[in-house]
Amino acid sequence: MTVTDDRRIDRYPSRTVTTPSITPRLDPVLHGRPEGSTDPRPDGPLDAEQLARYERTGVLVVPGLLGAERVAALDAEIDRLAADESVRNRPQAILEPESDALRSLFEVHSDGGPFEALARDPVLADVARDLLGSDVYVHQSRINLKPGFRGKEFYWHSDFETWHTEDGMPAMRAVSCSVLLTPNHSWNGPLLAIAGSHKWFVSCPGETPANHHEQSLRRQEVGVPDEASLAELVRRGSLEECVGPPGTVVFFECNVMHGSNGNITPEPRRNVFLVYNSVENALEEPYAAPARRPEYIATRGVVPI
Amino acid sequence: MTVTDDRRIDRYPSRTVTTPSITPRLDPVLHGRPEGSTDPRPDGPLDAEQLARYERTGVLVVPGLLGAERVAALDAEIDRLAADESVRNRPQAILEPESDALRSLFEVHSDGGPFEALARDPVLADVARDLLGSDVYVHQSRINLKPGFRGKEFYWHSDFETWHTEDGMPAMRAVSCSVLLTPNHSWNGPLLAIAGSHKWFVSCPGETPANHHEQSLRRQEVGVPDEASLAELVRRGSLEECVGPPGTVVFFECNVMHGSNGNITPEPRRNVFLVYNSVENALEEPYAAPARRPEYIATRGVVPI
Repeated sequence: MTVTDDRRIDRYPSRTVTTPSITPRLDPVLHGRPEGSTDPRPDGPLDAEQLARYERTGVLVVPGLLGAERVAALDAEIDRLAADESVRNRPQAILEPESDALRSLFEVHSDGGPFEALARDPVLADVARDLLGSDVYVHQSRINLKPGFRGKEFYWHSDFETWHTEDGMPAMRAVSCSVLLTPNHSWNGPLLAIAGSHKWFVSCPGETPANHHEQSLRRQEVGVPDEASLAELVRRGSLEECVGPPGTVVFFECNVMHGSNGNITPEPRRNVFLVYNSVENALEEPYAAPARRPEYIATRGVVPI
Repeated sequence: MTVTDDRRIDRYPSRTVTTPSITPRLDPVLHGRPEGSTDPRPDGPLDAEQLARYERTGVLVVPGLLGAERVAALDAEIDRLAADESVRNRPQAILEPESDALRSLFEVHSDGGPFEALARDPVLADVARDLLGSDVYVHQSRINLKPGFRGKEFYWHSDFETWHTEDGMPAMRAVSCSVLLTPNHSWNGPLLAIAGSHKWFVSCPGETPANHHEQSLRRQEVGVPDEASLAELVRRGSLEECVGPPGTVVFFECNVMHGSNGNITPEPRRNVFLVYNSVENALEEPYAAPARRPEYIATRGVVPI
């Protein structure tokens, strides 16, 4: 059974098809501007070069956006959460299969503490408003603790493909921020993005099973792009390694194809992951899933920051 | 039962211990020279900078050592072997678990064709003779076909640890060459080495099971260094990514701790792997294994090139 409203037009069909396809993006990359404009806004934080780069590649790496003290405070809060037994028992917690250590914790942006302060901080939210051309709210947030030595790869995916099919996000008008708390080098499994891939939508065959999120957060089985489409996206664009010291923020467009290799080095990677969505792009019913995902994975209350 | 001769002194004990340890290397890095000398030999191919670098880091990356035509010919020969059903049935062949495609093929240095010619070519063998200070022979050879998208990581190990315990190689007087046939970037799982780690021997707990090589070539379970020792080696040295275009040759000392991350990118990695051992360092009985490994993994006939 599907809850999809038949009267809706699905501009980005996926998981309703039997063969993969690559089709052009139907939404602007920079919103609320004249078409093709990458001019800075008078009150916006991003300059012309940053805007042009984001428009072209879908990725913007900004070193030094957070200072060392702020990074240390966020890092300490993660230590505290990771040591708290009750945190590991929350539904928002994802544990390492082998050790039961905390791997990820969702919905940190309403903690009343440093992560909520971070989500509301204009240093991030102004960038999101600049890119999305409207007020914004937090669609999803989590902290990620990626261990050294045994860090597993995360295969290629477009976040939008999941947010559209499973959460009912109608348009490509959201941006993710990865706030780096440890050094991200090329060798310890940094975010890999296919620059330019945000201008194409890769439709994935398969059908979303019930309660897919219970295992997809560990290993995704539907919504996985095919190898031929991935190779084609790399040919049309290029691979970009998002590296930088602690305090760097990586902004990436919701439809950028991205993933990460595993990490055998001793150097762990920690980040805070925040997704801003436009208040004009509120979630509807899922486009290709039997039911909504929990609120802690996909916020449905649109409260502008 | 062990075939180890009790009268021998084992200078590098491993797999006979219950706790890991890091002890100093007992052999020179550059052989057949005055102690501490990194001066070039009058007839040697390596210059003072290359020798000093290899002595210090254990790794030497030489771009452009093979020309494009030579690379193309080696690549074509791998294509031919990979397409040959009878090759996949040889004991020398290692197949991909999921697809039965050829992953590695051992003992290519006596093929009477391009790989034997490569192993005998002074462009490589002269470097090995320069480093090892004697005539050399091929201890092991193989071709590796590492696919894109699903390339698995290869965890940290010292080759010497295995060659000593399982093959009876007495001293650290061998050098490996990885001849790159495809571009090796930081993002497609290149060789990662811990520069400087060749000056330390990491003893690994555990005991070699019978016929260990039948599964260890897919995934090693003994001879695996512990995380604390690996972190310590990185602190004492540094991580080095061995990248370069096709035709690059990576020379690395037999005791350098190395491994590689997985590879989710579309770009495969192919290489020819050759190990030169000094004729003065012939294999004895295994130091910590119940039986010798097959000749196609560890050559016992010492025939100088």
